[in-house]
Amino acid sequence: MHYIGIDIGGTSIKAGRTDESGVVAAARKTPTPATNLDALIAAIAELVDKLRESLPISGLGVGIPGLRNAQTGVVQTSPHIPSIRDVNLEQRLAERIQMPVITENDANAGAYGEWVSGAGKGLQHMIYITLGTGLGSGLILDRKLFRGFSGYAGELGHTVVEPDGRPCACGAVGCLETRVSAKGIVQTAKEANFGKGSFTAEDVYNAATQGEKTAIQVFQETGRYLGIACANLINLLNPQAIVIGGGVMASGGLLLDAAREEARRRALAPSLRNCEIVQSHLWPDAGIIGAAMLARDNS
Amino acid sequence: MHYIGIDIGGTSIKAGRTDESGVVAAARKTPTPATNLDALIAAIAELVDKLRESLPISGLGVGIPGLRNAQTGVVQTSPHIPSIRDVNLEQRLAERIQMPVITENDANAGAYGEWVSGAGKGLQHMIYITLGTGLGSGLILDRKLFRGFSGYAGELGHTVVEPDGRPCACGAVGCLETRVSAKGIVQTAKEANFGKGSFTAEDVYNAATQGEKTAIQVFQETGRYLGIACANLINLLNPQAIVIGGGVMASGGLLLDAAREEARRRALAPSLRNCEIVQSHLWPDAGIIGAAMLARDNS
Repeated sequence: MHYIGIDIGGTSIKAGRTDESGVVAAARKTPTPATNLDALIAAIAELVDKLRESLPISGLGVGIPGLRNAQTGVVQTSPHIPSIRDVNLEQRLAERIQMPVITENDANAGAYGEWVSGAGKGLQHMIYITLGTGLGSGLILDRKLFRGFSGYAGELGHTVVEPDGRPCACGAVGCLETRVSAKGIVQTAKEANFGKGSFTAEDVYNAATQGEKTAIQVFQETGRYLGIACANLINLLNPQAIVIGGGVMASGGLLLDAAREEARRRALAPSLRNCEIVQSHLWPDAGIIGAAMLARDNS
Repeated sequence: MHYIGIDIGGTSIKAGRTDESGVVAAARKTPTPATNLDALIAAIAELVDKLRESLPISGLGVGIPGLRNAQTGVVQTSPHIPSIRDVNLEQRLAERIQMPVITENDANAGAYGEWVSGAGKGLQHMIYITLGTGLGSGLILDRKLFRGFSGYAGELGHTVVEPDGRPCACGAVGCLETRVSAKGIVQTAKEANFGKGSFTAEDVYNAATQGEKTAIQVFQETGRYLGIACANLINLLNPQAIVIGGGVMASGGLLLDAAREEARRRALAPSLRNCEIVQSHLWPDAGIIGAAMLARDNS
């Protein structure tokens, strides 16, 4: 059996064909047509066609950076991809490519991938956090992807870490995402007078690895907030693992060490004892693999 | 069928005999022997004897303010009742009173009660928060009491609302409980110069209902933190209801109104739309009823 998993990002769509256990056999990438739904669907259909290679494909899974209503399958809103709004992308794609399609929030798909074959493989309860431009998360509770009542569960990025903190893209203030994300890191670095002109979270990371003190402090401060979020999850949900992936985590241990230290300081000892805070095993393919495995398990 | 539910508090043990649907037919109360385990067991056995009234009792459920290991049944620790520490109270009680016994964290029992026959009756996903001296909570996810890996889930009181906030009894700082609890209210009132000498949260509430401005502000500030916690739960778990009970909530709407307003400001609109923030229906019996119904459903 073969499956295709797709991860729609703000700038590119990544796609992979996997076997039944989630191993990626072939992969493709294309820019995201963010403002035109027909072009987006055409781009996905083209990726599927190229990956198909005359093999029989049993299903397509698509991760979307947005809120998908689990009851109707409609994606309500996708902040970075304005063309996906109140659309049943599942239906539209199935008509176009003639195979079973399932859509899912992208962080939920990533969580599912890490749970099927990554750092949280087979655990009863695990949480996946993905740090990119923003912060996404997905919950595996009782060996199932936990979607909540409408399908919107897992918005850890919009839980509050500072009641009067930074304004967030969601309209609230003090959300975790304003601190722990590429955007948050750049903001923290600016406030610490890290450098003049424009720079990226990666620039800050590179400076930190070269021993630049301000940059190291920025990562430690970011890690502190990540650790607070981990402690909150441990105390509230008592999971076995918190798996952290995404572009920002690709930068490695600096953030993770600070997060672990802060979580140790705040989580209840009996709950902390049973929870590992670890790096993603599947990055950058967690989303693709998870989407493909969701197609497998829902067909 | 008859069941007995018991709610062990720091100062008193409350007990009730219920029918199969959780309706309380008879109730009793006795002071808690907090430092002597044998005396505690004897007190519970006496309550059971008195409530039994020669009826056949199918099971006993006991809510405990502490962390119960769901895998072993052992209560690790109960901060307010030092005698319950690393004890399998279930086993000890079953030997003594000769009937099936189940123990559970008291807020979890309350959540179960509100879900079986209270404000969250039959919902797929609901969260119960109980405001007393401290803050407890229990999660019903996918129509089941969610215990987490070890049984310690639901410690909302120890999630962080202020990274550098007040010291908490758990050893960390800035936990929700330091703000939203009887103790937290008294502290906030002290900081606002509410009154001289010693006073209780109830005194502050009484002043607020009489229009005393500082007291009203104290409740609004407390409600604001409760609202932040509600928004966090809504964004993370997308539940249908957050049910709030406990002694502090008995004081009514002032806190609830402020919490709802703050949650509206912070929760993601599509998730907020499907979630009600409501007062407990079963207070002060949620814990008793929930414990009895846990005995029913686990026997």
